Amino acid sequence: MIEQTEISSLGEFGLIEHLTQNIELQNASSVLGVGDDAAVIDHFGKQTVITTDLLIEGVHFDLMYTPMKHLGYKSVVVNLSDIYAMNATPTQIVVSLGISNRFSVEVLDEFYEGIYAACEKYNVDLVGGDTAASQKGFIISVTAIGEVTPDKFVKRSTAHQGDLICVSGDLGAAYLGLLFLEREKKIYLENPAIQPDLEGESYVVGRLLKPEAKKEIIEFFETHQIMPTAMMDISDGLSSDILHICKQSNLGCVLYEEKIPVAEETKKAAFKFEIDPTACALSGGEDYELLFTIQQTDYEKLTINKDISVIGYMTEPEKGAQIVTKGENKYPITAQGWNHLRKNPG
Amino acid sequence: MIEQTEISSLGEFGLIEHLTQNIELQNASSVLGVGDDAAVIDHFGKQTVITTDLLIEGVHFDLMYTPMKHLGYKSVVVNLSDIYAMNATPTQIVVSLGISNRFSVEVLDEFYEGIYAACEKYNVDLVGGDTAASQKGFIISVTAIGEVTPDKFVKRSTAHQGDLICVSGDLGAAYLGLLFLEREKKIYLENPAIQPDLEGESYVVGRLLKPEAKKEIIEFFETHQIMPTAMMDISDGLSSDILHICKQSNLGCVLYEEKIPVAEETKKAAFKFEIDPTACALSGGEDYELLFTIQQTDYEKLTINKDISVIGYMTEPEKGAQIVTKGENKYPITAQGWNHLRKNPG
Repeated sequence: MIEQTEISSLGEFGLIEHLTQNIELQNASSVLGVGDDAAVIDHFGKQTVITTDLLIEGVHFDLMYTPMKHLGYKSVVVNLSDIYAMNATPTQIVVSLGISNRFSVEVLDEFYEGIYAACEKYNVDLVGGDTAASQKGFIISVTAIGEVTPDKFVKRSTAHQGDLICVSGDLGAAYLGLLFLEREKKIYLENPAIQPDLEGESYVVGRLLKPEAKKEIIEFFETHQIMPTAMMDISDGLSSDILHICKQSNLGCVLYEEKIPVAEETKKAAFKFEIDPTACALSGGEDYELLFTIQQTDYEKLTINKDISVIGYMTEPEKGAQIVTKGENKYPITAQGWNHLRKNPG
Repeated sequence: MIEQTEISSLGEFGLIEHLTQNIELQNASSVLGVGDDAAVIDHFGKQTVITTDLLIEGVHFDLMYTPMKHLGYKSVVVNLSDIYAMNATPTQIVVSLGISNRFSVEVLDEFYEGIYAACEKYNVDLVGGDTAASQKGFIISVTAIGEVTPDKFVKRSTAHQGDLICVSGDLGAAYLGLLFLEREKKIYLENPAIQPDLEGESYVVGRLLKPEAKKEIIEFFETHQIMPTAMMDISDGLSSDILHICKQSNLGCVLYEEKIPVAEETKKAAFKFEIDPTACALSGGEDYELLFTIQQTDYEKLTINKDISVIGYMTEPEKGAQIVTKGENKYPITAQGWNHLRKNPG
């Protein structure tokens, strides 16, 4: 049994010192890190990219089935994903926590282990933050900073008619991971003697609990001199997110169901819940894959990357956003998103 | 009676659009603002300064006596204060909110009015953020970005023995503002028919509810080519904050009680509560004045600024941190801070 240290025994400043004492700054741009009023960053003539996310216990995560280390890792990754989605490279993060008194120092150490693991993997420095008491629940606010060569960043609003729509990796897995964990939680709450049965579901559960940001896709663009015309990360589900690109680029689109990449593990999991794997890909969310458009002339360059699928193309705005099903029917794409599915799983 | 619009009627994206639709970016460095995965900032060769704060209802503010507009304004100002405390100029903010379902769109509009008022006053652009549901209470996370000419930023750790210790403005007022508001809240809760009596207390109440960041002090340094040797803002109280400079600069200090600036209004207010005004200055916190050290040779340059008081000097570390009272007694300075006072008001 691990000894539990009350946070109040360290005090706010002692706690920050404890959690940040082993930081070694990795980026030359990290001029000054934790421990002052603010951090100082030198981007050496590059432009700064900044994004922020707020995660609230009971809304964005459930500590009953989310290990603290995974939660720390994911809190960082979801922000880095937004930086990559600008075609930029993340360099620093600041992390603020609201902590209720039910947490011990050891539990926060686990959370920070996850933060540091993500920092190491993505070569990012933790340079500041804030800790506060919360009356209820665990609150995480992460802001990520990145850098980009001027005019290399990619917006959502700059797709052109005829551009190909692409996604990295595969979609829908994280949502099925959530369904499994919610099911096991329900069973456990009804009968705590029953052990969780996640046999064979490690892929979908892993995609939910420990997502990765698509660093290697951005590196692939750089190496092969591919400049996407528009890009974003898939956090709310393919439907909702392609509609952002359509709306902001003032275009329509056609997606082909048969082209949407879904992993075998995801299909099997969807089968168990008797739901449509495509619906999970369209509305599940939390996949953190990249959704981007490219000029048709770049198509050849993409074919060597097995992690990229072309799933449709951009059209004139009058055609709206449509999906062609495997049965060759056309339906309008609507943004239902995660919350819709969550309320009506199946 | 103002019509109240449920937030759910707009949806998350509709809400963000509603709250940010009138933004006009003021800084040339704000290349891309709200509405994409991340914002893009060009600092044109300057270094980036970044700080973040998390404010939680019931811990950092009480909506019973805090108008939403003031809260929005203050949420920004407390972060800008940290940027100025680095001798830097704030340029952008990102704001994340956790909102419970008891808030209406109109209430959030008021909050954003305060945000925008602070942005306008300090010439800062709102370039991004996140909105999330909260299960309980209002949660505010603000991250501020600033810029500074390389090597012009001022840390806490670089004071030298013999340097003069200075503060801007006056101290202790915000804490007395809090005491008045807490007193009136208690009276109201016991008997809602009694109207709040804050007659004559507008100065101390104003210092709590609508603090300002000390932009003009940083401009004064620039104009008169004064480079503080160490600096921070006073958020936790003079005692706690001077101890940060002592610890991080590995020095001791001597403060003179009679030199600590306290406004007449603050003294009068302290008298009503039968507490020592100096104790409020030392441990009250939330003053957002600047605490800084300068070389003795810069003393003459300071004398023309009536808003700056010299209150002591830095000593060798062996002497510790001490205060000389008006009665010429010496006491060690201890960090009791706001929370201590709050628990034992008077």
